[in-house]
Amino acid sequence: MKPQPSKLAYVPFVSVDNMMRLVNAIGPEQVMTELASYIEDDFKRWPEFDKTPRVASHSTDGVIELMPTADATNYGFKYVNGHPKNMREGFQTVTAFGVLSSVANGYPVLLTEMTVLTALRTAATSALVGKYLAPKGAEVMAMIGNGAQCEFQALAFRAICGITKLRLYDIDPAATAKAAANLTAQGFEVVKCASGMEAVEGVQIITTCTADKQYATILTDNMVGAGVHINAIGGDCPGKTELHKGILLRSDIFVEYPPQTRIEGEIQQLAEDHPVTELWQVMRGEAEGRRDAKQITLFDSVGFAIEDFSALRYILDRTQDSDYFIKLDMLADPDDPRDLFGMVMRAA
Amino acid sequence: MKPQPSKLAYVPFVSVDNMMRLVNAIGPEQVMTELASYIEDDFKRWPEFDKTPRVASHSTDGVIELMPTADATNYGFKYVNGHPKNMREGFQTVTAFGVLSSVANGYPVLLTEMTVLTALRTAATSALVGKYLAPKGAEVMAMIGNGAQCEFQALAFRAICGITKLRLYDIDPAATAKAAANLTAQGFEVVKCASGMEAVEGVQIITTCTADKQYATILTDNMVGAGVHINAIGGDCPGKTELHKGILLRSDIFVEYPPQTRIEGEIQQLAEDHPVTELWQVMRGEAEGRRDAKQITLFDSVGFAIEDFSALRYILDRTQDSDYFIKLDMLADPDDPRDLFGMVMRAA
Repeated sequence: MKPQPSKLAYVPFVSVDNMMRLVNAIGPEQVMTELASYIEDDFKRWPEFDKTPRVASHSTDGVIELMPTADATNYGFKYVNGHPKNMREGFQTVTAFGVLSSVANGYPVLLTEMTVLTALRTAATSALVGKYLAPKGAEVMAMIGNGAQCEFQALAFRAICGITKLRLYDIDPAATAKAAANLTAQGFEVVKCASGMEAVEGVQIITTCTADKQYATILTDNMVGAGVHINAIGGDCPGKTELHKGILLRSDIFVEYPPQTRIEGEIQQLAEDHPVTELWQVMRGEAEGRRDAKQITLFDSVGFAIEDFSALRYILDRTQDSDYFIKLDMLADPDDPRDLFGMVMRAA
Repeated sequence: MKPQPSKLAYVPFVSVDNMMRLVNAIGPEQVMTELASYIEDDFKRWPEFDKTPRVASHSTDGVIELMPTADATNYGFKYVNGHPKNMREGFQTVTAFGVLSSVANGYPVLLTEMTVLTALRTAATSALVGKYLAPKGAEVMAMIGNGAQCEFQALAFRAICGITKLRLYDIDPAATAKAAANLTAQGFEVVKCASGMEAVEGVQIITTCTADKQYATILTDNMVGAGVHINAIGGDCPGKTELHKGILLRSDIFVEYPPQTRIEGEIQQLAEDHPVTELWQVMRGEAEGRRDAKQITLFDSVGFAIEDFSALRYILDRTQDSDYFIKLDMLADPDDPRDLFGMVMRAA
């Protein structure tokens, strides 16, 4: 009889289909609430992690990145691309997958799609940060950029921060129409706006989430009034920003991991020593979040590896003892670990 | 009807079982000969690659590494661990998998096991280097360290350099017995030796391939005579070396990628500016390889990302239009790329 792979040879794999089944079974708002809790737990133990800025390979049309991090128990990494032109050719701008491993022996314990999961963890992170920084009683959010991330942000901000009303704007009215249809169906009060200026009228939170890889000014200085929280998602690589520098200078700026944000975030427009506050310190109560009702707070979001690590931990916990994965024969596991060659020969 | 994933959503996956089927169908020596040819092609166009030392996450018991590289068309990376203690607990010291992607849109085009493939590409690289550096007419090779890599090295050196006789030594006689049995069955003339000193008697090539993560002296200075080529495989991370410094000082040293080898290779024992020759320049005829019959040549092998890239290219070419892969639903691919949320909802 042909030798069969041992139990050690298998890695659980969560496909896109299984990820969608899982999200629908739990409900997207519940998933993002639970994800935010995993992310918050990991941010609160920030010093325990092995941290490095992501490893990026840039080309003319986009970027491919690896985002690793580890604690004493697990190692995780995400593969993610960003190709703004993809959309026009029928591909996703961002696709991703990730792996969680055991630090003790280096064996992967989970392989999962992360295109859907990244959308969920990005929105969960934004809303978690909103919980600490948005003005009290916020109900209305402007969303500038109505692409693939838009609905996830809206649902996370409802679940975690109580947002019920949305003001949408995109340079492409078809994107706004798509988001408005999805979000009305989800029970939001939605206003489609004809400009960014119209979108920000009377809101407490402004989410910017556009995808072009160039210096852009989605928000000009006069659009941002006192007391607003800005959730700036789209500026996330060198040369890609969304906010006018004047807004940055009037805001208190909160970031994930300064060495990465200074390269990739909105603050690449500022001096290298411009003061920023690290969110993990706010969550631990070691740094101040929102001080008063007049303050402009800015989350300069670029996405950090620890958020993916939290998401991988969550999916592992949520899929164990379930049928949301299949087992992949991904690891060679000979009976005698030194006899890899013999295993190959005996497979003949 | 439930929507089905589009063609774009699928990534071909080569399992361990399929990798072994492929290797047995082609034959391991033929596979390594073809791999060496892919590696040589890529070394000859070295300046075209985006290169970086691997990204390592060290822990008490081992290391987990990501090894990315890219040319203008493809991006590739390998995940690989190294845990010397694994062997004692019934796990592989090294396991690996890898991904090849399209630079143009960032989509993965291949996911494959790389534990077996790494063993093949490491041996193919060693033998390819041996073709340039070993003394003419070499027939006998000493192999010190008879673990998982041993047989692959022997077969590659037979296929590419004409080695027919092997002298084996390992501190664990069971490892030598295992390798001797496998290699005798493969038609080699094998001598089991009681010491490293005995193993190197009268050989033209010395391969060292041990796994302990510590400064070791597998070869002492008096063991290495004039004219020998040393293929030093096992010294491949900070603190892990196999050769006495005196040997290094008497040898002409050839390396893959100096910024990585100076951290990980045997030459971590030497001054940072100790002269070394880059193999890609030898292969292009831009630097000298072996000059004369008395010279000691040393390949300070640590394994570089471009070798994995070549291996990924090879496996993609060899498995396309075959049944050596299955398709994984790994990429979210909504009909409207902006409507990721709608895709998730419609899956309910």
